[in-house]
Formats: sequence, C-alpha cells, structure tokens
Amino acid sequence: MHMSSKELPKIVTIGGGTGTFVALSGLKEYPVDISAIVSMSDSGGSTGRLRDQLGVLPPGDLRQALVALSESEEIWRKLFTFRFGTGDLEGHNFGNLFISALEMITGSNKEAVEYAMRLLQTKGHVIPVTFSDCRLCAKYENGKVVVGESEIEENKHPDSKISEIYLSPKALMNLEAKKALERADYIIIGPGDLHTSIISNLAVDGICHVLKGVSAKKIFVINLMTREGQTDKYKVSDFVDEISKYIGENCLDCILINDRKPDSHLLDLYKRVDNVIQVEDDVRGNHYRKAKVIRGNLLARAVYKQSSADKLKRSLIRHDPGKLANALFDVIDKPRSLW
Amino acid sequence: MHMSSKELPKIVTIGGGTGTFVALSGLKEYPVDISAIVSMSDSGGSTGRLRDQLGVLPPGDLRQALVALSESEEIWRKLFTFRFGTGDLEGHNFGNLFISALEMITGSNKEAVEYAMRLLQTKGHVIPVTFSDCRLCAKYENGKVVVGESEIEENKHPDSKISEIYLSPKALMNLEAKKALERADYIIIGPGDLHTSIISNLAVDGICHVLKGVSAKKIFVINLMTREGQTDKYKVSDFVDEISKYIGENCLDCILINDRKPDSHLLDLYKRVDNVIQVEDDVRGNHYRKAKVIRGNLLARAVYKQSSADKLKRSLIRHDPGKLANALFDVIDKPRSLW
Repeated sequence: MHMSSKELPKIVTIGGGTGTFVALSGLKEYPVDISAIVSMSDSGGSTGRLRDQLGVLPPGDLRQALVALSESEEIWRKLFTFRFGTGDLEGHNFGNLFISALEMITGSNKEAVEYAMRLLQTKGHVIPVTFSDCRLCAKYENGKVVVGESEIEENKHPDSKISEIYLSPKALMNLEAKKALERADYIIIGPGDLHTSIISNLAVDGICHVLKGVSAKKIFVINLMTREGQTDKYKVSDFVDEISKYIGENCLDCILINDRKPDSHLLDLYKRVDNVIQVEDDVRGNHYRKAKVIRGNLLARAVYKQSSADKLKRSLIRHDPGKLANALFDVIDKPRSLW
Repeated sequence: MHMSSKELPKIVTIGGGTGTFVALSGLKEYPVDISAIVSMSDSGGSTGRLRDQLGVLPPGDLRQALVALSESEEIWRKLFTFRFGTGDLEGHNFGNLFISALEMITGSNKEAVEYAMRLLQTKGHVIPVTFSDCRLCAKYENGKVVVGESEIEENKHPDSKISEIYLSPKALMNLEAKKALERADYIIIGPGDLHTSIISNLAVDGICHVLKGVSAKKIFVINLMTREGQTDKYKVSDFVDEISKYIGENCLDCILINDRKPDSHLLDLYKRVDNVIQVEDDVRGNHYRKAKVIRGNLLARAVYKQSSADKLKRSLIRHDPGKLANALFDVIDKPRSLW
C-alpha cells in the first residue's frame, strides 16, 4: 500500500438506506478512515411517524449507517435492526427510538448522533447531511410536484418522469459534512436509490458546490436494479448523466459497475412484483465521460431474510459488502498518480 | 470497618419501584456487594402496555434498579428515565422499551437483564424475583379479590382492608434470588409500597421459606407515608406485624425509622390530595419484637421534579439516598457479634 499506516485513506460515503449500510459494512473491515454522510429526508414508516409525532429529525438513515459501522457487541446490531411487531409500537424500529430519545433528551440531533456513535463504538463518523427539517420534493415532467420521500416512492405519476429533485424548505449543509468532504481522499457515492438516497443529499444547499471544488477522487457505485417510478429503464449512462446534472459534467473519477447477472428466477420475481430490471451496462470501453469504468462481480450470493416490515425489493438482490469493499479498496489502493 | 476490603459485605435488597431506586442509589456509593431482588408483578402504565401487547415480563421495576446501580455514563440514566410525551409512544419509558426489546431479541428475560447490566455497567446484580408471568392479587376482608398490581393501587374497596396478597398463577422463585439470599450478610427490605413492592416479592413461592432459613441480618426500612387503600393509618408496628405474617414472627433483626417530620405544607398536600399521612412511630424503646429499632433523619430535603407521567405522591416526600445509605451502612458496619 502506498500510504503509511499512520495515514489511512480518508473515505467519505454519500447515501442512505440499505445501499450505504452494505458499503459501510464492507469498508469497515479495511484500513480506512470512514465518514458517512447520510440523507435526512426520510418520511416513511417508523421514521415518518417519529418525525411527525415527536418533531425529531429522521433517524432511519442515521441508524443504518451507525449500525453498519458499529464495532460494539453484536447485541447492538440486533437492537438497532429490531422492529416491534405488535401493539402501540408496531413497526417501530428500536434504533430509531433510541436516536429519537437521545435527540429529545439532548435537544440536539448532532449530540444524539455523537452519543450514538460513542455507545455503538462506530468505526468512523456518521454525519447527517443537514440538520434542517426539510421535505424531499419531486417535480415531474407533467408539471406535478410530490412532497415527501415516502410519497415519491409511491410512484404517483407512473406516466411521467422526475425532472427535478429539491428540498423544501431549503436545507442548510451540516458543516461537518463540508469538512469531511474537504479533507477526503475518496468520495463514494451510492449505491442507493438515486433520487431518495443520493440526490436527497446533493439537494442540500452548498453540497454540490463543495463537491465540485474538492480534490478527492469521486467514485460512483451504480445500482444493481432500476426502481419503478424513479429510474425505470435507466442504464448506467442514465445514472451517470443524472447525477452529473448536480455535481457537474465531468466530476466523477470512477464508475463501479456490477457485471454479474443475478439468478434469472430472482430477476423474474423483481420484474413481476416490482416492475424493475437489472441496470444495463450501456457504456462501451473503460471510460465514460472522464470517469474510469471498473467492472466486477459485486453481487451478494446470500438471500437476505425478509422481515415483516421490509418489502421484497429490499431483501433479495444486493451488493455483497465484502465484494463491494474489496473492489473499492482495489481502486483506492492505487497511487493517486496512476489515476 | 471490621471486614477486610477483599470481603465486602454482601447486601441484598428486596423491593421495587422508587423506594428501591433510592436505597440502591445511596448504597452504590459504599463499599458493598449489592444484589437487588425486584418485584415482577407491575401491571400499570408503560409496563402494563408492554406486558399485554408484547408478552414480555414487566420491565418497570427492573429498569429502576438497573439505572440506580448504573456506573455508566450519565446519558444512560437519562435514557432509562426518559418518557415519550406524544404520539404512539406516549407514556412509554425508554428504559422499559430497551429491556423489552432485549427480551424479545434474546427470547429470555434473564438474558435481557444480563445484557442490560453489562451495557449499563451496574454495580452489582439486578435479580428478577421470578420469571413466571403472574398477576398480583389482593383479597379483601369483604371477600372480594382484585387482580393486578395497578388495579390494586386503584383502591377499589375503600371500606375494606387487604387481608391477603398472592400471585396467580403461582410464581416460581428465580434461583439466582435464592442464591443471593443464601450468601447475603444483610438483607434490606424496603422502603417501598408494602403490598405492591414488598409483599409482591414475598408472595413468590419459596422466598419466605428461604428468608426464614438464611443467616443474614434482616433490616426493614419503614415507609415515610401511608398509602390509601393499602396501608391507611398504618403505624410502624403495623408494617412490622404485616410483614411478619410472611417472613415469620421474629425474623427481623433491625427496623429503620425516619424520625424527622416533613414540612407541614407538604403533609397537608399529601393529606388533601392522596389522603395519606406520615407513618406514626408507635414503637416505644429500642426494640420491637426481636428487632433492634434505629431512628434517624432519613428525609430528602430536595423536592423532586415532577414528570408528566408521575403522580404527586411519587415526587415530594422521599427518603434521601445518602442519608438512608449512611444509616444502613452504620448498621452494617458493626461487628456481627454486637448484633
């Protein structure tokens, strides 16, 4: 490795949800300095109820990043992924309750996350992209606007495409996110739902400006599958083109693509139940725009257990944490002069 | 001190609720080996909802003992006493949710308590008196039976006295409780509600038999105030006589009585709102039955902040943790030959 052991490569991930959980779970095992910038606009399920009823900031994406980076006892992982099945608490995730209680006790989401990092002994930092209480909004080509991340996921305008994503009211960037991006050696964007986990970060005021200015190498992990109502029929180039609208035309340094086909019966199931397909690699050769294209087998072989609260689409075709982290580390472990 | 530092006096408390919380909070600061046996028949409030809806054992009394003995960061104390104020979670105590989630994850109340002790870094052990799912029952002199601890507290038969307390179905003693009692040097009973925090422990099958047989010195801390519908007009002798029905005629070695009068405006308030009075010390001299009587100022000067979920009677007239522990330690710190 080209860096001394004292000088671990500084990696910042941008995302939220399961994709970020998988990336962080894998990266945690490597000698890297990790910061995870996570989306703060979730409005569905347990998180949405807590936001609405308690006035806290959305804990869901924070929780997934915290548990992914935890180096504490296994019981914490179990607690932070546990959902109550019945009664008043039905559907509530314990980790969400934990973060919300900490926020209400301290009066500060920032302090809540700091306590949670300490109690869970996270390797690295989890950084809410914003502390602003904001809603994700999608404007469609038909002129309609849908407000709320979970509402956007409901696919209310199946015959129209999303033309713009923004936050309302305007969200201020968490300065810790800015600092982390400025000191980063590598910024990993995704995997994760393009609009609701990735652009929901980029829509925070100032983030794209910072991203354009920093020296870090930017790696975009392309999703495995499309998403109905958001990225229907998207190919690799569509993902890159869409994100380039936000962070700039030639801002990406590397694109990481899975080149393995999932089992055909799983693909059939996804097509039938969720109307989604595998993201097609339409990029010829080893570059797209100015980014280097790297392909490999990133697919998890294990089929994840489906919880009552999870939908099918979150449980079967996934990146493998180890393979993804290994591929990322291969990229990172090159002298920067070779990029 | 008569014991070497390696051989800390082994103290077991029997109780539940706020009284035990106060005793343990004070004792924790002394060089003693503490085990807290707590009642497992709470059926009201947050605890009752969790029992009924999730099928867990009642976490409330465990939670109070755990937080009292915690030597971990202050944030744990805050979390374990935090109550959600609004929404689905209204009235739920976070510590109760924590213990319940641990029980559901591990499938075992015993393991849940072990995890909680480790995470909270408790000084000493918290021991559920039973793992049986049981209800506290009160039979009244009028022949009526009331089932459920919180129902008993509602004082449904104001014109009749409780003649018998039992658990239904029969509760099996936790063997850890038996072991703790057998190795104890001192057993501290109370303070706490006579029927719902103390006798609720003694009603567990086998406990009284064990208590009668062990060599430990038994100290009974008399409550400060009576309780409507349970110990109306009880004097010190009534408390001792009542408990003697369970643990035997001359089983107590020491009785600890507060001899300080609370502020008269507080007494007026208690009388007016809750129809309760200070427990009268009707014991002449320094012995009652075979027990030595010790009197002192055990009263807390601080007025506790009233939480929305607490009732008045739980917030104002209290034992002081430091004074109570100091008085207990004075008793304990005598060579056993002087008893």
